[in-house]
Amino acid sequence: MTATLKEFLEACETLGLLRLIVTSSAAVLEVRGTIQNLFYAELPKGRYANLHQELYEFHLNLDKIAQVKFETGVAKRGNFTTYAIRLLDEQGESALSLFLQWGKPGEYAPGQVEAWQALKQQYGEIWQPAPMAAL
Amino acid sequence: MTATLKEFLEACETLGLLRLIVTSSAAVLEVRGTIQNLFYAELPKGRYANLHQELYEFHLNLDKIAQVKFETGVAKRGNFTTYAIRLLDEQGESALSLFLQWGKPGEYAPGQVEAWQALKQQYGEIWQPAPMAAL
Repeated sequence: MTATLKEFLEACETLGLLRLIVTSSAAVLEVRGTIQNLFYAELPKGRYANLHQELYEFHLNLDKIAQVKFETGVAKRGNFTTYAIRLLDEQGESALSLFLQWGKPGEYAPGQVEAWQALKQQYGEIWQPAPMAAL
Repeated sequence: MTATLKEFLEACETLGLLRLIVTSSAAVLEVRGTIQNLFYAELPKGRYANLHQELYEFHLNLDKIAQVKFETGVAKRGNFTTYAIRLLDEQGESALSLFLQWGKPGEYAPGQVEAWQALKQQYGEIWQPAPMAAL
């Protein structure tokens, strides 16, 4: 499917509660939140998707994401399946990860896993966002 | 002052409400929170300080932080002073930033700026953490 990253991020609202994860050279920050009410800005460094909530915010340089990957895994604690979306930069490193957030270990909200599967089917397990003409 | 990063992080509890910021190649994640109840783990990649809260968590590889820098700035919106601590990796990049969190723009909680100034005076504007013998 040909889609821009902007379109995809907006579709991620269907995933419900997520665990957003950003990793630097030495630190990992994780926050529970939803993706909604995104707004956009064109800066010298690139075109950004932004999200402001009371307790957290994120900024994503859309022009620096080369690939999007759907990934399942096994949770370290609890032995249940995790469902992630990795936004990869040109080096293949995860610039932003979105995990479906469980309540009790292994318990996802109704429809959440189905929404993840539906997006995976629609976009493909690994896909390249189409270039954006404008924001 | 000779201190380890572990000692310093524990002293950061005096700063009260912070804005924790981690930046990857393409994304910035920011969360409001305090630094308290840190716990530690020795992993193959390094020795980590960890923080688990209901809404967020962070993990910091203590062995990858080369310098700590106190930095004031001017807020983009509001024209007030910001007070930050940058934990820099060996390339001088900020692996984790801690900003004093304001309530209304420019309004810090009582004692918060004084606590930041006291840490700056105690540790110095830029300092190198002492090697840790053990966690």
